[in-house]
Amino acid sequence: MKLATLRTAEGTTAALAVGTDGYLPLPYPSVGVLLADSVWRTTVEETVQANGSIGSPALAGTIKASDADFAPLLPEAGKVICCGLNYGDHILEMGRNLPEYPTLFAKHADTLTGANDTIEVHGSEKIDWEAELAVVIGSHIFRADETEAQAAIAGYTVANDISMRDWQNRTLQWFQGKTFDATTPVGPVLITADEADGHFVVQGFVNGDLVQSGNTDTLVFGPARLLSYISQFTALRPGDLVLTGTPGGVGMGMTPPRFLQDGDVLTTEIAGIGRLENTIRIMSNGPADASRTPAAIATTKE
Amino acid sequence: MKLATLRTAEGTTAALAVGTDGYLPLPYPSVGVLLADSVWRTTVEETVQANGSIGSPALAGTIKASDADFAPLLPEAGKVICCGLNYGDHILEMGRNLPEYPTLFAKHADTLTGANDTIEVHGSEKIDWEAELAVVIGSHIFRADETEAQAAIAGYTVANDISMRDWQNRTLQWFQGKTFDATTPVGPVLITADEADGHFVVQGFVNGDLVQSGNTDTLVFGPARLLSYISQFTALRPGDLVLTGTPGGVGMGMTPPRFLQDGDVLTTEIAGIGRLENTIRIMSNGPADASRTPAAIATTKE
Repeated sequence: MKLATLRTAEGTTAALAVGTDGYLPLPYPSVGVLLADSVWRTTVEETVQANGSIGSPALAGTIKASDADFAPLLPEAGKVICCGLNYGDHILEMGRNLPEYPTLFAKHADTLTGANDTIEVHGSEKIDWEAELAVVIGSHIFRADETEAQAAIAGYTVANDISMRDWQNRTLQWFQGKTFDATTPVGPVLITADEADGHFVVQGFVNGDLVQSGNTDTLVFGPARLLSYISQFTALRPGDLVLTGTPGGVGMGMTPPRFLQDGDVLTTEIAGIGRLENTIRIMSNGPADASRTPAAIATTKE
Repeated sequence: MKLATLRTAEGTTAALAVGTDGYLPLPYPSVGVLLADSVWRTTVEETVQANGSIGSPALAGTIKASDADFAPLLPEAGKVICCGLNYGDHILEMGRNLPEYPTLFAKHADTLTGANDTIEVHGSEKIDWEAELAVVIGSHIFRADETEAQAAIAGYTVANDISMRDWQNRTLQWFQGKTFDATTPVGPVLITADEADGHFVVQGFVNGDLVQSGNTDTLVFGPARLLSYISQFTALRPGDLVLTGTPGGVGMGMTPPRFLQDGDVLTTEIAGIGRLENTIRIMSNGPADASRTPAAIATTKE
């Protein structure tokens, strides 16, 4: 099953991918709210039955994929926790030892943006990409072992942990370069864990050129281990999001370093899940535009 | 005006300090929800008028201070952002230069706990203290200058950024040592900005011995500057919390290092605001106790 959060004229709605090119709206305002309802699978089945059979091109109420306007997949995520330095092949090629513990930092729900949104950045000149697999939590866990953590995975999605390297490197803590509002695209869909084999190839492209490609089989801390580790100190709940780190090929690591320019198109793709395509706009650092506040971004059409 | 969030048999309630030893419940479940209501001052006035005059020992519905059970001041804070390395006298005495930019990191609402709560820590043997002034946001700001940021301060409270140094130093990012659920006491009250002069002495005591004392006049990044800086990349909203950093005297800096032991009482005090008093319990790292989950801690009596 693939689930999305779509913007509509009435706000956002969770939606189920049906057939090859449509989304059936579900009676939840977002995938996060859906996941918090323990009977969401039954509700999805009932909604499908009420509207026709999956695969029917005539399924009533379906939004055509070409008309879908993707909101951040989890607009109200309570926790967005990210792992750095997690691709073994990249760490080893850099001559470093594999880490004993995952390097973790946080984003906010406000940091997230939609799968095809234009990303406006104010006040940074070193905007870099980090294509990542993201794990969506489906049930409450606290001090869970890896088996419990695995069972708590609702599914997987695509993210790009776009990083303002100038801000990230101003101090020892990366937080400020990782939490510019509405700069981390997440989506377009969640693929449920039961339909994913757990092996993913994560790829990033700038203006169509492949810059990153990594296989999640080389993650030092795989999804279940990462969730178990995090849950030792903080509870995870339905709709929380964990970003699993990025493979080699970021702009900062190039010689000379390469950063995103105004108008660049950043594409992030995981075969079997989906693709993010975001145009970067570099803004003068003028007064805030109220229409671009995170709340407006979460609910309004671009 | 001093405001608290109290636990009651029916959940939590915002409350106004009245007289010298009482709290009048207000029609909001917490100080955070109160601050999000633009007419909260009118509601507070009306509640006082409906119950009698402030200062009257007979004010109806008042909870005696000795009976007050303090919940985390802002149990549902959307953002909890902390500043490290911010006391100029401590930085200079350590032989370092004053920083050009604030070092920032995040906690979660789940990290917070009540002013007198017992703090149970699982899985750490290096529990340290960090007495801090915390700033509570009162209105939405995004890319605000310092004047706008100053006007957005609802008030001030007391916090202790209790840190698990073993976890904090496992990797370059401090996050995991700073976000153990229910380990950062915040409260007991918010003093509104109009009643505070902005000059505070922050003190920390372990079992009654003074271990930290700092004057916020020596902050490198004062509250308005800090809020303005943060708002350049992320919006702040009513009920969000910014911790301003800790003065010298943490246990890790002692020779030899000193960490909190099972049964130690940690007291954190800012004259004119109030005092936190928390007993530390060091737990074996066994299975999670559901009664200690953050949601339970926010709403139930210790």
